[in-house]
Amino acid sequence: MRTLKVALDARSYPIHIGDRLLERGDLILPYLKAPLVAIVSNETVAPLYLSRLAGALRAGGVQVTEIVLPDGEQYKNWQTLNRIFDALLENRCERATTIIALGGGVIGDLAGFAAATYQRGVPFIQVPTTLLAQVDSSVGGKTGINHPLGKNMVGAFYQPRLVLADTDTLQTLPERELCAGLAEVIKYGLIRDLPFFEWLEGNMDRLRARDAEALTYAIERSCSNKAEVVAADETESGVRALLNLGHTFGHAIEAGLGYGKWLHGEAVAAGTVMAMELSRRLGWLSDGDLARTVALFKRAGLPTQGPALGAACYLEWMALDKKVSSGRLRLILLEAMGHGVISSDAPESEIRAAIEACCHG
Amino acid sequence: MRTLKVALDARSYPIHIGDRLLERGDLILPYLKAPLVAIVSNETVAPLYLSRLAGALRAGGVQVTEIVLPDGEQYKNWQTLNRIFDALLENRCERATTIIALGGGVIGDLAGFAAATYQRGVPFIQVPTTLLAQVDSSVGGKTGINHPLGKNMVGAFYQPRLVLADTDTLQTLPERELCAGLAEVIKYGLIRDLPFFEWLEGNMDRLRARDAEALTYAIERSCSNKAEVVAADETESGVRALLNLGHTFGHAIEAGLGYGKWLHGEAVAAGTVMAMELSRRLGWLSDGDLARTVALFKRAGLPTQGPALGAACYLEWMALDKKVSSGRLRLILLEAMGHGVISSDAPESEIRAAIEACCHG
Repeated sequence: MRTLKVALDARSYPIHIGDRLLERGDLILPYLKAPLVAIVSNETVAPLYLSRLAGALRAGGVQVTEIVLPDGEQYKNWQTLNRIFDALLENRCERATTIIALGGGVIGDLAGFAAATYQRGVPFIQVPTTLLAQVDSSVGGKTGINHPLGKNMVGAFYQPRLVLADTDTLQTLPERELCAGLAEVIKYGLIRDLPFFEWLEGNMDRLRARDAEALTYAIERSCSNKAEVVAADETESGVRALLNLGHTFGHAIEAGLGYGKWLHGEAVAAGTVMAMELSRRLGWLSDGDLARTVALFKRAGLPTQGPALGAACYLEWMALDKKVSSGRLRLILLEAMGHGVISSDAPESEIRAAIEACCHG
Repeated sequence: MRTLKVALDARSYPIHIGDRLLERGDLILPYLKAPLVAIVSNETVAPLYLSRLAGALRAGGVQVTEIVLPDGEQYKNWQTLNRIFDALLENRCERATTIIALGGGVIGDLAGFAAATYQRGVPFIQVPTTLLAQVDSSVGGKTGINHPLGKNMVGAFYQPRLVLADTDTLQTLPERELCAGLAEVIKYGLIRDLPFFEWLEGNMDRLRARDAEALTYAIERSCSNKAEVVAADETESGVRALLNLGHTFGHAIEAGLGYGKWLHGEAVAAGTVMAMELSRRLGWLSDGDLARTVALFKRAGLPTQGPALGAACYLEWMALDKKVSSGRLRLILLEAMGHGVISSDAPESEIRAAIEACCHG
């Protein structure tokens, strides 16, 4: 087991990464405020892993409430959030009850937002079971739900007390989900860690084959990058925005098609190519930089072109993104491989051209 | 104009109390992050005061979005909260947009929770227009909505950047609402400020007659008490719970009858009498203490007995209250006049007897 730390003063917390951690009640017990837990999971993950985690906690004398939600990004909304509140209240969960998210990014976002707002805040623990959640969404405290007019438009910054990434759970992960997680892994290399990008070029086949050692290394290095960024800028007033490389374009893909058609990581991959094409047009990247990245995304099983929604549709959704400031679109671009930059200066004509160059059809 | 401060380190903020403050855009402008504001108000308050506040801001070059909601505690729910999010998104409000609550406690709670969660948090300002909001709910950062299974069950601690209490707005306040606000004013005297309680005994008639000087003094002294408590315990892990005197019994009244039948302050008044009757049974208060307090509530135009819901119904709703800890009900009682105390020790038989002694019929 490897342990990293997210340094946020009094709210600092550890990330444990390793195999068979689901059964390690001893890792969780010290972080509970009372022996009361509500585990939030979904219909896909619960049959595989819920009894293992709940059993370990019950063996430690913890009273466990199980809340199982439907699976999918399309359920990241008010209705599902309210199902969590209903269950918490029906089971008389109180302020000392710890909410544990057992699942991927959607479960983490929903359960985390429920923890942030149930009775104005209860303790929260993340047990991510997808690659995307283990390398990205479970770390850093972003929680929330989607709104029909925009993704993640309602939410809170709310840090967990502990993140427990059991790498064994990746063995049952559908191929498409594994690939989606790799998009965020590659992202760290592109925005701030070129040696890691190069390591990924050398080890993508091992990752796709779910080599445990390679996966553990990729998760640890991703979390290490993320923890550094979050510690420097918890609420995204500055450098943390770099983590959104490809996300503004990607959100347009997800929203334009309707949430759930493309996985988040797939949209981020195609969106990253758009952001890099724009960076190339601005003279910051070479043709070779772009070709090399597209090749890596392809080896990761990810799309490198967006759906043909039309540039106007992309721009409309992008204008609704949270990264808008004083009416100007703030985009994450690359000024070089391994060096992300926040830019509000790209001309709309170039943004439009970059989108059109990177869409099907 | 009088100014108090809520001391919360980097999140400290001023409370301005005085007349004609609605027109003082100059007091608000320094607290905006960008010249973008969304004012949330209701159908009762907006026709009276919205144009005055919005006009002052527009004169200062601020772009103002107006969001007018239906009036009443029964609207403090998901549906109304979503109307705020819809309006914010339709008007392309962004992270730098400041949400201003213009209204009573319900508007403050709804708008504050929207500010806490829209795009994971935007700046927030309180402009309370009821006595209850000016002396209590606008100060201290409690925001949230009701759930069918319990009051204020979903919410966040989220501090405003500024509170602007314009005492002129109290001149149009319905009599019943003025009286409801006095319940929270009397509360401060009971839990921690006996000299203020005595001042209220000497000045209740002036307050009921809306004497501007008396009202300003009562608001200032109430806010001063509240600011001290909040500074000592922002998230209610300890002493802040004292502010809930009468609230656990009161929530049972509000929920048992259906939200909106009784005003919050009315339920708090009857609930406070129950808590004091229980304190008397425990040997902490005299018959005279209770009689004196009942007399003051009556002069404030407030109920001093609860509806005859039956003690079992009260206890059931009270068990759902947020003040439950490890299954035990934590109540705020008085160990003497002017001295509140948090207690988990009252026997259920005594709680039941206190409820029955203080109900109609």
